[in-house]
Amino acid sequence: MRWTQTWIPTTKEIPADAEIISHQLMIRAGLMKKLASGTYTYLPLGLRVLEKITAIVREEMNRTGAQEILMPALQPYDLWKKTGRNQDYGENLMVLTDRHGRKNVLGPTHEEVVTSLVADHLSSYKQLPTNLYQIQIKFRDEYRPRFGVLRSREFLMKDAYSFHASLESLEETYQAMYDAYCRIFSRCGLDYVVVEAESGPIGGAASHEFMIPTQAGEDTIVRCRDCDYAANLERAECPPPAETPTKDTLEQPEDVHTPKATTIEAVCKFLNTQPHQMIKTLIFRSGGGEVVIGLVRGDHELNESKLAAAAGVDAIEMADEETVIELSGAAVGFAGPRGIKGKAKIVTDHAVAAMQNAVSGANRTDYHTRGINPGRDFPLDGLADIRNALPADRCARCGGELAFSRGIEVGHVFKLGTKYSEKLNALFLDENGKRQPAIMGCYGIGINRIMASAIETGHDADGIIWPGAIAPFHVIVLPLNMDSPEVVSTAEHIHDELESKGIEVLLDDRSARAGFKFKDADLIGIPWRVVVGDKGLKAGHVELKSRTQKDIRKLSPHDVISHCATQSP
Amino acid sequence: MRWTQTWIPTTKEIPADAEIISHQLMIRAGLMKKLASGTYTYLPLGLRVLEKITAIVREEMNRTGAQEILMPALQPYDLWKKTGRNQDYGENLMVLTDRHGRKNVLGPTHEEVVTSLVADHLSSYKQLPTNLYQIQIKFRDEYRPRFGVLRSREFLMKDAYSFHASLESLEETYQAMYDAYCRIFSRCGLDYVVVEAESGPIGGAASHEFMIPTQAGEDTIVRCRDCDYAANLERAECPPPAETPTKDTLEQPEDVHTPKATTIEAVCKFLNTQPHQMIKTLIFRSGGGEVVIGLVRGDHELNESKLAAAAGVDAIEMADEETVIELSGAAVGFAGPRGIKGKAKIVTDHAVAAMQNAVSGANRTDYHTRGINPGRDFPLDGLADIRNALPADRCARCGGELAFSRGIEVGHVFKLGTKYSEKLNALFLDENGKRQPAIMGCYGIGINRIMASAIETGHDADGIIWPGAIAPFHVIVLPLNMDSPEVVSTAEHIHDELESKGIEVLLDDRSARAGFKFKDADLIGIPWRVVVGDKGLKAGHVELKSRTQKDIRKLSPHDVISHCATQSP
Repeated sequence: MRWTQTWIPTTKEIPADAEIISHQLMIRAGLMKKLASGTYTYLPLGLRVLEKITAIVREEMNRTGAQEILMPALQPYDLWKKTGRNQDYGENLMVLTDRHGRKNVLGPTHEEVVTSLVADHLSSYKQLPTNLYQIQIKFRDEYRPRFGVLRSREFLMKDAYSFHASLESLEETYQAMYDAYCRIFSRCGLDYVVVEAESGPIGGAASHEFMIPTQAGEDTIVRCRDCDYAANLERAECPPPAETPTKDTLEQPEDVHTPKATTIEAVCKFLNTQPHQMIKTLIFRSGGGEVVIGLVRGDHELNESKLAAAAGVDAIEMADEETVIELSGAAVGFAGPRGIKGKAKIVTDHAVAAMQNAVSGANRTDYHTRGINPGRDFPLDGLADIRNALPADRCARCGGELAFSRGIEVGHVFKLGTKYSEKLNALFLDENGKRQPAIMGCYGIGINRIMASAIETGHDADGIIWPGAIAPFHVIVLPLNMDSPEVVSTAEHIHDELESKGIEVLLDDRSARAGFKFKDADLIGIPWRVVVGDKGLKAGHVELKSRTQKDIRKLSPHDVISHCATQSP
Repeated sequence: MRWTQTWIPTTKEIPADAEIISHQLMIRAGLMKKLASGTYTYLPLGLRVLEKITAIVREEMNRTGAQEILMPALQPYDLWKKTGRNQDYGENLMVLTDRHGRKNVLGPTHEEVVTSLVADHLSSYKQLPTNLYQIQIKFRDEYRPRFGVLRSREFLMKDAYSFHASLESLEETYQAMYDAYCRIFSRCGLDYVVVEAESGPIGGAASHEFMIPTQAGEDTIVRCRDCDYAANLERAECPPPAETPTKDTLEQPEDVHTPKATTIEAVCKFLNTQPHQMIKTLIFRSGGGEVVIGLVRGDHELNESKLAAAAGVDAIEMADEETVIELSGAAVGFAGPRGIKGKAKIVTDHAVAAMQNAVSGANRTDYHTRGINPGRDFPLDGLADIRNALPADRCARCGGELAFSRGIEVGHVFKLGTKYSEKLNALFLDENGKRQPAIMGCYGIGINRIMASAIETGHDADGIIWPGAIAPFHVIVLPLNMDSPEVVSTAEHIHDELESKGIEVLLDDRSARAGFKFKDADLIGIPWRVVVGDKGLKAGHVELKSRTQKDIRKLSPHDVISHCATQSP
């Protein structure tokens, strides 16, 4: 391919809205171009990368025996009502009303569509397992699209859905997909970490995320420095504190006037105490309408998915003011575990159970209670881990030290269980003729995110450093002087020969200054660079340089061709 | 691939809404499955076909030097306001309001996006020509989706857009794309007809459609039996009538009372006359607000795009009642060319100009005028061809007989001119340093329509007959008896050997009756069928049959492998 015949609009300018390096370089190297907030056009160079990643994903999916299909982006809204996900997704869901007044969802994922598809054809356990995947455009109405393709409104996903007659069969496919994911990210040249993620209805670690560790990531990875435990922040387990209570004197509860002190900070200031001596009483409501109360230490962050799981409900959100007032008998900000009334599931975090002489809301407007001792002053029925881990915590597995880092989620494998098959009637007759809902798994990969992650973890001050397998071209041939017939014809010869050998090669045939071309070659990050100049040619050689190394090798045009055709950089 | 490991839900049932054979067979052969009105999931077999077509299209596009990109489906509505296409598309346009209240278009095509993309980077004529294409999902809010994928709400298109500094350069790319389209449809095994379509702002036949002749098509193709003239109905030229007027006595205009006779039929009945003796006076309004009147014979159909072109306006729609009453001074249904008042462009069809003693509305409620003689009773300034051709018409080129047939439009090449580049500022400096809008062409192919067309033109009573190049598999191996170890192992051997040679082969390893498997093999239409049975094996042979022929050849397993690997059916 000749540079003048393709379209690579490189630029020095860093777009004002590009906060992270991959976003900056994808624009600067002419890989893509912003259309509107959260939507991008892939230009020829960017699309080549995307197609290479797609080809690797497709190959590894086919290798597992998964069957490729293609589902519509437009989905009936009614299907989403059946699973309740029209509510769960909230405003992130793109909804379109058509000319006949029917509501359609622009799919962010395809659980409903694929489950109803399988439901229509499933009758016997003999048809299972089956694993269907697609590589398709997804939509998400992000409140604030940013970080380039990492948080965009339209993106390319590989999503797979498997259906099983038994948990063992699900486990087998889950493992096959897990292994395929490892191969995919390795082949794309990425260093990845697999972390335990959300637990699901099946129990245990029902889900794993594939993370690319980088500062630009939005997710927090928690890893043990001593064993191989790794989880995302939402999932990372917090073991009960090892220390036993140390204070001998257990105070008696006493209400203190704390006017307008509705935050941890305000109360601490007022009572001259510390956040870790306070109990936060947080009141939620589940999708089913139940009230759930979580008690965590003042310096800890409550983890909603842990709390929901501990309370045995699907999803929770903060309760409204009315509910809080009704339960506590006080204005918002003064609820406490002692004597809270009404019907609610109370879950107490392990760390709270270990507290002594603590401070909490008094269930009385403008009052807090001090001298509270859990167990004595309120019951500890629902003891569980309902908070986020902190760097000071110890590994739940081995007691080792934890390391926190940032990462980009590029893949997710999940044991869904029967949530969708039950609601959408994906049933089969088992070996005993009994009707059962299919057990499902789902498996996603963000194709665009792989591309951005490769740049986040592969670049230097000059530009992108592509891993060989997903580089848009393998070789760039750079003639120093387009006015020299010998330089041009040698460069063209090298280009044509490599192309005829099936090597993807870009010839920078622009009439531009050599320095300008060097800068662009580094910016777009092609693994091999071949420079052809008059001076070298007189000495019988051209120059070969790898994007990752400093040294330049002088080779004859003949040798450079066979070298680039056979060696990876 | 083994049948039991993929997902091909064949069925005998014809879906109630499937009016045409391709729609029926695509469902019956398990190629796709309806999700909702006008949306379909492609199942593994269907997707294989789609991907083969896509690969051919991509290869031929790349061969022309066109550059592949990928634009978002979500487009800012504001961009469409700039070109006015938000109005032109009407209710067919899918519009989505996002969480921030911004309107987005789900792109049915990408002229706005690609033009603004190029506009941002274009500065000099040296950057031109450029030709950008994508293969991408498109959306259209069809009033009544039908005919399976032929008129659906979500479909796969190849759309290309070229930008030029001169008409000659546009002409060159237009021809290259035209030639590429011929190669694409030929390679897909389709008999196609290229017809002249809409004329455009550049003049001449600015557009060609690629049609697959078949009764199921929604378009009408007009072809000359004597020369190679071919056009779609909208474009087909109607030459002025060859005969000169024959009546010697020119009557005088006379108003006749025709109460409530507002249709051609009613007036004919009332006055005992014929539609071809009547003049229809049809009143339109252009996008710019101008009133345009078209006069056609009572038995002719007015062609709106011809009328708009003749009147020199962009697009027209029927005028409202108020306008008609104001112009004619009468209720709707009684307008006539004689003495019509007000500011309007009047265009008279050639056939009207040749009429004598005609009947028309009297511009007076409940009255018609007879004895009207065009030229004498109203001026013939705007004489043009503004009607649709009829089978009785003669070829505009050679005077030969016309043949009318139906066809499916699978491709369209169009010289756009500067409509979009002017409105979206895709400007360049020419060789003289003068700023000019880029001259554009656009080129579309309906990928799904190729698939449906191949079935419409390639099937028999038993099922699909795929053209070799786009068949989902090349060979189906059919073991007659899955309980016979020898049959199974021979079938598997043939399957494995062919697969190792890169031949796409499907092994029907289902434990089903032979007759059932034969029926399914014919239904899904694989070019070669290899039958393995006990009886044959004892005699040392298996049976080879082509989907298109009746005769069965007996070959050794070894010979059948080398035959299928080297011969096309």
